[in-house]
Amino acid sequence: MKDDDRRVGVWFVGARGSVATTAVVGALAIRAGLAEPVGLVTETPDFSDLDLPSLDQLVFGGHDIAQTPLAKRAEELADAGVMPRDVVTAIRDELVGVEGRLRVGAAPGDRRPQGEAAAELASDIAHFTEENRLDRVVVVNVSSTEPPVAARPAHDSLPALELALKTEADVLPTSSLYAYAALRAGASFVDFTPSTGMRLPALAELADANALPYAGRDGKTGQTLLRTALAPMFTSRALRVLSWSGANLLGGGDGATLADPEAAASKTASKQRGLSAMLGQEVAGATHIDYVADMGEWKTAWDHVRFEGFLGTRMTMQVTWQGCDSTLAAPLVLDLVRLTACAHEAGARGDLASLGFFFKDPLGGEHRLAEQYARLKDWAGGL
Amino acid sequence: MKDDDRRVGVWFVGARGSVATTAVVGALAIRAGLAEPVGLVTETPDFSDLDLPSLDQLVFGGHDIAQTPLAKRAEELADAGVMPRDVVTAIRDELVGVEGRLRVGAAPGDRRPQGEAAAELASDIAHFTEENRLDRVVVVNVSSTEPPVAARPAHDSLPALELALKTEADVLPTSSLYAYAALRAGASFVDFTPSTGMRLPALAELADANALPYAGRDGKTGQTLLRTALAPMFTSRALRVLSWSGANLLGGGDGATLADPEAAASKTASKQRGLSAMLGQEVAGATHIDYVADMGEWKTAWDHVRFEGFLGTRMTMQVTWQGCDSTLAAPLVLDLVRLTACAHEAGARGDLASLGFFFKDPLGGEHRLAEQYARLKDWAGGL
Amino acid sequence: MKDDDRRVGVWFVGARGSVATTAVVGALAIRAGLAEPVGLVTETPDFSDLDLPSLDQLVFGGHDIAQTPLAKRAEELADAGVMPRDVVTAIRDELVGVEGRLRVGAAPGDRRPQGEAAAELASDIAHFTEENRLDRVVVVNVSSTEPPVAARPAHDSLPALELALKTEADVLPTSSLYAYAALRAGASFVDFTPSTGMRLPALAELADANALPYAGRDGKTGQTLLRTALAPMFTSRALRVLSWSGANLLGGGDGATLADPEAAASKTASKQRGLSAMLGQEVAGATHIDYVADMGEWKTAWDHVRFEGFLGTRMTMQVTWQGCDSTLAAPLVLDLVRLTACAHEAGARGDLASLGFFFKDPLGGEHRLAEQYARLKDWAGGL
Amino acid sequence: MKDDDRRVGVWFVGARGSVATTAVVGALAIRAGLAEPVGLVTETPDFSDLDLPSLDQLVFGGHDIAQTPLAKRAEELADAGVMPRDVVTAIRDELVGVEGRLRVGAAPGDRRPQGEAAAELASDIAHFTEENRLDRVVVVNVSSTEPPVAARPAHDSLPALELALKTEADVLPTSSLYAYAALRAGASFVDFTPSTGMRLPALAELADANALPYAGRDGKTGQTLLRTALAPMFTSRALRVLSWSGANLLGGGDGATLADPEAAASKTASKQRGLSAMLGQEVAGATHIDYVADMGEWKTAWDHVRFEGFLGTRMTMQVTWQGCDSTLAAPLVLDLVRLTACAHEAGARGDLASLGFFFKDPLGGEHRLAEQYARLKDWAGGL
Repeated sequence: MKDDDRRVGVWFVGARGSVATTAVVGALAIRAGLAEPVGLVTETPDFSDLDLPSLDQLVFGGHDIAQTPLAKRAEELADAGVMPRDVVTAIRDELVGVEGRLRVGAAPGDRRPQGEAAAELASDIAHFTEENRLDRVVVVNVSSTEPPVAARPAHDSLPALELALKTEADVLPTSSLYAYAALRAGASFVDFTPSTGMRLPALAELADANALPYAGRDGKTGQTLLRTALAPMFTSRALRVLSWSGANLLGGGDGATLADPEAAASKTASKQRGLSAMLGQEVAGATHIDYVADMGEWKTAWDHVRFEGFLGTRMTMQVTWQGCDSTLAAPLVLDLVRLTACAHEAGARGDLASLGFFFKDPLGGEHRLAEQYARLKDWAGGL
Repeated sequence: MKDDDRRVGVWFVGARGSVATTAVVGALAIRAGLAEPVGLVTETPDFSDLDLPSLDQLVFGGHDIAQTPLAKRAEELADAGVMPRDVVTAIRDELVGVEGRLRVGAAPGDRRPQGEAAAELASDIAHFTEENRLDRVVVVNVSSTEPPVAARPAHDSLPALELALKTEADVLPTSSLYAYAALRAGASFVDFTPSTGMRLPALAELADANALPYAGRDGKTGQTLLRTALAPMFTSRALRVLSWSGANLLGGGDGATLADPEAAASKTASKQRGLSAMLGQEVAGATHIDYVADMGEWKTAWDHVRFEGFLGTRMTMQVTWQGCDSTLAAPLVLDLVRLTACAHEAGARGDLASLGFFFKDPLGGEHRLAEQYARLKDWAGGL
Repeated sequence: MKDDDRRVGVWFVGARGSVATTAVVGALAIRAGLAEPVGLVTETPDFSDLDLPSLDQLVFGGHDIAQTPLAKRAEELADAGVMPRDVVTAIRDELVGVEGRLRVGAAPGDRRPQGEAAAELASDIAHFTEENRLDRVVVVNVSSTEPPVAARPAHDSLPALELALKTEADVLPTSSLYAYAALRAGASFVDFTPSTGMRLPALAELADANALPYAGRDGKTGQTLLRTALAPMFTSRALRVLSWSGANLLGGGDGATLADPEAAASKTASKQRGLSAMLGQEVAGATHIDYVADMGEWKTAWDHVRFEGFLGTRMTMQVTWQGCDSTLAAPLVLDLVRLTACAHEAGARGDLASLGFFFKDPLGGEHRLAEQYARLKDWAGGL
Repeated sequence: MKDDDRRVGVWFVGARGSVATTAVVGALAIRAGLAEPVGLVTETPDFSDLDLPSLDQLVFGGHDIAQTPLAKRAEELADAGVMPRDVVTAIRDELVGVEGRLRVGAAPGDRRPQGEAAAELASDIAHFTEENRLDRVVVVNVSSTEPPVAARPAHDSLPALELALKTEADVLPTSSLYAYAALRAGASFVDFTPSTGMRLPALAELADANALPYAGRDGKTGQTLLRTALAPMFTSRALRVLSWSGANLLGGGDGATLADPEAAASKTASKQRGLSAMLGQEVAGATHIDYVADMGEWKTAWDHVRFEGFLGTRMTMQVTWQGCDSTLAAPLVLDLVRLTACAHEAGARGDLASLGFFFKDPLGGEHRLAEQYARLKDWAGGL
């Protein structure tokens, strides 16, 4: 029997961004019968036996430092072809309702000890939980990608971290500060970006101490999705991949962030590592990420794979993927929220490695899409 | 413990064609240490525990109505970039040895009762078995694709078939005549083309009566291989495929055969059926097959997929595959021979549905590549 | 000095179709300052010295048998991403004005002698001319493509045509009936589709007798545009094109029409002819046209070119073009109207071969884009 | 009347490289009737009236610091699919003949005053001229691309240059040292690479003083060839290109050189400049050059163009080019030699701007392929 009185909070870090806006609009549209649940894995028959929180039971809120109202962002996205204008108009009032639950996030350049900022963020989440009488809250980081961060001793143990937070202003990268605040507020956490977030031993310790689950890292929405479907084909057919090269053209906020060479370097290195893991060998080739303003919310990925078959003959595969990033990401965010909340309810704690299906950089190292899906189904069956 | 004295015969229908020639050259080259076993699924770690006949234990022979000597065909293929000229030169003597085991096949336009032709074909196979002291023989059809064949009552039961063969000249399509002869000679049979072959109830009856296994149909080497890796990605992500369109450009013998509209129609209808099965819905789009003489042994497939995601947003994926058909097919033929021989030895009879991984049109209806691979591994583990 | 009091009528055959609707919306939007004249060749510096009718001087009307109001069609096109919704809203009143000048076109299945239908169509155009005090009218056929038409003796001379029209119901294909009516009404004529239209000797005779110019045939908007830019590259570099293959995926009205094998055959044969003309040799390959409903107003063309270079080495070029047909066609329609009106004013009569730049199937046989453009500029300079 | 006794020397800088080897093999093969003159612009009808030196009249020699014999290099290229093995075998003796005319080139790290090295290089060329009784010699730089070079005062005038060469070891980049030597030896010079070569005022002065013609820079063989055919299509149709992005994957020697970020930067900046010149506006986008060892002599270029049409609708074109660099370059080298020799004979001096058709970075700034071809034909007509 499904629990019909549950109320689950979804707290976005980056609540006014394209992904969060699309997720909110989509959830509201589907529950109003204005859209079909296309793209929602948790609405497919394989997950129908699971006692997941329904879309009706989700309550949205979040942090952001941007000021554009959510309804305005939704209209901008409609103009960019990401969602139908009519749907945005129809749910305008509900968007205004969500707007009332958004709070100003962690300000860059804040020179106070980070413990103070963390306390404020945690207090926002706690207030959200109480005021909306929520059974539990999932915090999801969908804010812009950070550059890679240098390791510090304070990252390695919870006591060291707590001590540093009391006096220093730059202990944690912002994504990890939010993760810390979430755990402190009793919320589970989903790392939807490649930023550091939960990936610090001190935070794993805290999650364990507070018996909270978390999932991550970096939503798998485009080129990597394709690669994890295609690379196993070569492996299972004993074809030797010689090089896997690629280009990514993207506009939007993420595009500008990733055009930063340091952030791009971190993202591309992670891509090549995943490929090598699946192919069981080092594979040559580079993948570029270019910011092309006119692409807006759209993303084009080109892949060029050279491989060797029987008797050394060389062949080629090329793929072009033209996707809308927010459209692809938003339903995964909702899937992750529902599954993480359900796991939390079931008593899971620590990293939810079985959710690797959703991530570019999963814990546990299984990158192959079909295997990840099989594992997800098994895990869901066991909940 | 591996059985080192086994001798397994490989009898090709279409023994002078590109696929058979490439398979023979490849097997000889690998056992001479002149090439690596790239493309051979049965040489990967997942199959290392299996007691498969080694490449050394294979003896090649076959039927063809073409006259070009095997060594000459191999040189032509080397000129076309399908294999290195040096390898062909190095194994020339062995190719001449195989040449001595080739026989003239069933002549088109033969007006005798088909039973007579079948007896001659079976006798060639029996003679091959005896002369080479073979433990068992696998017959593989790699000859040109036939046009679809009209159903006849004689196809439906073995007694009716036997009766008709005694007096009529055109009871069975040529591919099925070879299958009949193979089974009569005690050999197992692999349908590597889309031709009718074993796919008649009367022949299934005969295989069962003779306790013989068989496998088919239509080697999965290019566009369909890709599609069975990619379509499940859309399904598992709940993305709705609106249309899947494609073009195939191919030269070579198969190209000319498939340019025949009737044969092409049968091949393209089968492609669209497989897609619909994997996507769980009818999918719009057409796939064309064009004969382009200058492509020679090469094949280019273009796929264009339009799909719908969250909130109805439409996106596009395109794939271009440039493969060498014989290079892709030949190792699969060797894999199938080894696995079928092993199954035969283990007492399997009837359709080897677990070999669906290798086929475009498998019995049993599972088209998804990763699932087929998992099933293949399970089955191999049980042998 | 530019003639500021001119009034030029644009009479569309197919006035409620996507191309006509887009042309009208675009012209109104540009003159209202709501859009830039992107895509309008006649607005580029190369044509700035020419005394062309301005967009302000154009008055729109036309025939159609469809009933959907123009403003509604424009909204549908806005939903399909062909034009911005805001622009359509802003010029709504003007669209209603154009609506008032649309008339019901030639009904299919009309069994009266065609002369009667022609007289009615011509009378509509004459009425449009008078009521709007127009200096001249250009009739443009942008209705659906017809299947190829069988030759008849009545097509070969004007007297024979006139005689047949008096008594027969099916002398002319509809496109030619409109051309006849246009010439009878003193209007020049632009064949923007591959339909027969003006391409009959009897009509050329009539145009000559009435001192009227005409232009055609078949607007060059996508794959052929690319091909006429690319094929000369191979020729001027002495590279030998071996095959030029292609696929076209299109939705919309034209898609459904062209899915008819007969219409498609006529279109693809014309494409291959143009290629051979530019390459100076027969070129292998086929180009398919597929109707894919979900493409809507959009069109994807894929081209695959194999060519041979120095020492026989074979290479490949592939192109994918994703265009919006109406967006590409509409400005060309306006360009043609302005240039044809200007030519008419300057006393030109007969086929305006110098407008070949705009057409897939130009009279005169020059298909190369750069040469066509050079000729267009020369001709415009001489007006 | 054609001058049948002429003897024209072709002196390669980089004589053992892929381009020079292919040019030599091709010229020898065509004159032996073993290959057709595909790819040779000067063998097309448009140039048949010109009194060009025939392929029979060319005598090959050159400098290189690599040691691999020419015949061996040709065999390697045959193995890589760049030329047929049979042709190489058939002209083996002639290749050995050319081998005898190759000399060791300028050694990197030579610390002598550069004037001494220049004198030796010039003396090699002079000796080649005499020994082979040549009427004139064309020196062609086909060696690896240099990184960009810092400007020096000695580059700006001939006297300053002469003075510096007497005492300094690093006045000129190697490509310019060869150009200087060529001019000193009375030979004309063709810059087939993007290296500095003739592009220094002091060298222009010397060419002028010695009444010698020269041509350059950087052979247009692949992606840029396509771009200069395609960009004018957008311009002449008034379509607004928003971004033009691209990737280049290449192996071979040039690939490794260009993977050097500095050299790549110079090449990609030059690509984007050419695009902007043709499109009449700055255009967004980046073009990457990646070294992918397994590509060998082959090169894949991918282009992605976003453009805006009527009413602001955005569309996309993608091109993939898979070419063999040496195959594309070699016939252009022969064309340039013949045209430059002919121009020299006709008394031309200084930069042959009319040869811009062959170059990525032509003097004079006309990048559009069709216009360049028209200019080339005009110029040839005037010789």
